[in-house]
Amino acid sequence: MSQAVSSPLYAAIDLGSNSFHMLVVRHIDGSVQTMAKIKRKVRLAAGLDQNNALSQEAMQRGWDCLSLFAERLQDIPEKNIRIVGTATLRTATNVDVFLQKANEILGHNIDVICGEEEAATIYKGVAHTSGGLGRRLVVDIGGASTELIIGEGFEAKALTSLKMGCVTWLERHFKDRQLTESNFNNAILSAKETLRPILTQYTDLGWDVCVGASGTVQALQEIMLAQGMDEVITHAKLKRLQKQAMLADHLEELDIDGLTLERALVFPSGLSILIAIFELLNIDSMTLAGGALREGLVYEMVDELKQDDIRVRTITSIQNRYQIDTAYGEQVATLAQRLLEQCSPEWVAETQGPILLETAAKLHEIGLTIDFKQGGKHSAYLLQHLDLPGYTRAQKHLLAEITRRYREQLTSLPEQHALSGISAKRVLRLLRLAVLLTHRRNPALEPKVILKSDGENLTLSINRLWFEANPLTAAELEIEANRQSDIGWPLVIELL
Amino acid sequence: MSQAVSSPLYAAIDLGSNSFHMLVVRHIDGSVQTMAKIKRKVRLAAGLDQNNALSQEAMQRGWDCLSLFAERLQDIPEKNIRIVGTATLRTATNVDVFLQKANEILGHNIDVICGEEEAATIYKGVAHTSGGLGRRLVVDIGGASTELIIGEGFEAKALTSLKMGCVTWLERHFKDRQLTESNFNNAILSAKETLRPILTQYTDLGWDVCVGASGTVQALQEIMLAQGMDEVITHAKLKRLQKQAMLADHLEELDIDGLTLERALVFPSGLSILIAIFELLNIDSMTLAGGALREGLVYEMVDELKQDDIRVRTITSIQNRYQIDTAYGEQVATLAQRLLEQCSPEWVAETQGPILLETAAKLHEIGLTIDFKQGGKHSAYLLQHLDLPGYTRAQKHLLAEITRRYREQLTSLPEQHALSGISAKRVLRLLRLAVLLTHRRNPALEPKVILKSDGENLTLSINRLWFEANPLTAAELEIEANRQSDIGWPLVIELL
Repeated sequence: MSQAVSSPLYAAIDLGSNSFHMLVVRHIDGSVQTMAKIKRKVRLAAGLDQNNALSQEAMQRGWDCLSLFAERLQDIPEKNIRIVGTATLRTATNVDVFLQKANEILGHNIDVICGEEEAATIYKGVAHTSGGLGRRLVVDIGGASTELIIGEGFEAKALTSLKMGCVTWLERHFKDRQLTESNFNNAILSAKETLRPILTQYTDLGWDVCVGASGTVQALQEIMLAQGMDEVITHAKLKRLQKQAMLADHLEELDIDGLTLERALVFPSGLSILIAIFELLNIDSMTLAGGALREGLVYEMVDELKQDDIRVRTITSIQNRYQIDTAYGEQVATLAQRLLEQCSPEWVAETQGPILLETAAKLHEIGLTIDFKQGGKHSAYLLQHLDLPGYTRAQKHLLAEITRRYREQLTSLPEQHALSGISAKRVLRLLRLAVLLTHRRNPALEPKVILKSDGENLTLSINRLWFEANPLTAAELEIEANRQSDIGWPLVIELL
Repeated sequence: MSQAVSSPLYAAIDLGSNSFHMLVVRHIDGSVQTMAKIKRKVRLAAGLDQNNALSQEAMQRGWDCLSLFAERLQDIPEKNIRIVGTATLRTATNVDVFLQKANEILGHNIDVICGEEEAATIYKGVAHTSGGLGRRLVVDIGGASTELIIGEGFEAKALTSLKMGCVTWLERHFKDRQLTESNFNNAILSAKETLRPILTQYTDLGWDVCVGASGTVQALQEIMLAQGMDEVITHAKLKRLQKQAMLADHLEELDIDGLTLERALVFPSGLSILIAIFELLNIDSMTLAGGALREGLVYEMVDELKQDDIRVRTITSIQNRYQIDTAYGEQVATLAQRLLEQCSPEWVAETQGPILLETAAKLHEIGLTIDFKQGGKHSAYLLQHLDLPGYTRAQKHLLAEITRRYREQLTSLPEQHALSGISAKRVLRLLRLAVLLTHRRNPALEPKVILKSDGENLTLSINRLWFEANPLTAAELEIEANRQSDIGWPLVIELL
């Protein structure tokens, strides 16, 4: 039985070059639950003069913000607080003046971490919140620094922090606020020069997937969604956005669907850096990470969350938190996998296909925690909105749409970007059959079945005696054959 | 930490005069979670001949249905199964023939319970699923019997089962299927005659609230919602529905918004019985119970669910299942109550007002289990759809709309039927203030405040030193004063 006690809070504060962020969370059954988020645009980097000294005004903006944070910090145990400063505080010559008063206000010490430590923490935040196998390149474009990391699992193999960020690149290459081709070209070229020293090391190490963190990539994701694109960032899309941006002469006139006012100012400079990274490192595609620096700080504090497979941790945590019948989920997942193999393993071609089928099988009953009636609708609501570390937004969306249809009425799947339309449909068909055949919730009592596929035509062979001895399931299988066939997914039940 | 094991299943089967129902549930952290529901319209009562013998066809319909149920029963522990037969099986002269084969098919014995036991079990089902204080009159109109019970808490004080039901009354008074005034009058008159013997006993005992269970009342509720009425059933509404029904000459032409085909046939007869009960017992109003016979059978089996205050059990269970910070919920509820008393206890006049305020305070953070962003929206979704024994549908709706608005943007409440519009607004204002003033999640660190009301004008007095020492809360209070004032709910912050 779960204990609804006041579990201890954790706070992670990040004094960035553009904004200060505070994140307050608690740890619940293997998940990190956000309890508060506060953000203030302090624009510290903009307050550096030519000699890299912070202006009095910029420091005051920082202190004002910290006094707000301080109010929330007072009741959080000392050992559950991490406060870090990054690029601008690393650079500022008068950082001691700022820190002395800042530490006083907070009642806690600020760690100004070096670039390499920042990169390592970002990697931890990514590794704890993003799924995917193989070697991973992580890119985080901050206000005054950009971190690039290569790692595998929880281990980073290369850590770099470059003195280039969307605020510094704005001041250096878009000082006139003109969105001209030459400004973009200079910004991209100069970013490439900054990157070049690490090129050989990174291409030698290589990577399988590329993940982007921070505001620039987040903003891109929002724009792409607002414009109806899928969530995968490619070089072609970045260049298309650059063209869209250049339609405005002036930064102030920038008007791109899905771009918020708050992010607009540093968008062209961030975009230029990202284009440079894509071109120099020859990146195919990038997805958005589930977390970065602040999440890394949190996961460093919460020991219990160390687990090798992030998706396993997510599934287990969700099963516990929503009291899902895990043994039954396992049974459905096992049968679904067996049915897929009977069809032929290639029936669902993408590597993510079987993983999403397994996840849907293990979590499809989550909606029952809300109510039996409309259980599928509730499952969809939860999987759509829950934080599921290890799954991208598009994958969550598909999981939601599949579990929405796990039983009863069957409608076609809506557009989605996690799998091909054909594979998504096939995953749904397999899940529905696996659910139907496991009603007795005991693997020993499952009927022996053989599923054969011929393109979209499925034939499920089942023992006649079993069929006759189980009239409820038999009736449901016949209804299911009609339902799938009726929407153009032929399914025949064959008695042996 | 909760254990997502396969918790044992329970099954309750009710062989009614009109339909057979099977309910499969499991017990999770103080809540009953439905895992399956199967219903077949067997129309057993229609198969009784003049000598009260069941026809072979009717028995066969029953056996066919039971063989479906049997498939699901085989994996449920013997002690977790209850199967009962009611009025028609009490009456049938050849019940032994039916039972012998039925028991064989099920592999379990059917209890044909007497009317008094049926009434007692219905009362248990109501008591475990419906809130409200005081003495309660329960009315359950079945196919061939009607149960009337008076009870308090979990204790029944009068138990009656009358041989009158919506199927028998259909055959007796609407045999020609005409919806004439004279058919209705006869049905009502005859129901009153059937009721008269218990009149004195029931009016002498008296009751504070009246609750209806079963299909007839459920159908009424659905019609009223479809027609935009509130959920309280009154004599005036029943007579209005009788008039609507009489617009059709024939039962087959009956067309009332919100009435499903499935319920249409026995609707006029059920309505007549209910009108008779309202008139003879002089009932003001009735609400729908959260459960009846099947729920009573389930709650009899699950020992852990015996708890005196059904709403306390519901709140505790929801807090556990959704890992809500209970200490914090208690703090918010206590402060909200204190603020209400400072305004004057009558500021929210209805007795349900403070109860709903307390419930909202204890559950408002439930949405955080899904995600911090849009936490209020998620709270609303959960409270709207969760089964909350002890709260009516209208109360759940108001709880959802209040918790949807517990923080940040403030919009007016939509139409609702749980409280007066003014009281609902006041409950929301108090909740928002209580949430805002308890950010530190520690009662010892709450500011001393005094809330004064003058009609809709609120003045919150707060210590100036505290205000200045807590700039985050101070800023939020100022924003809150603007938000409430902006939608016409004046709130002034006064520093002392």
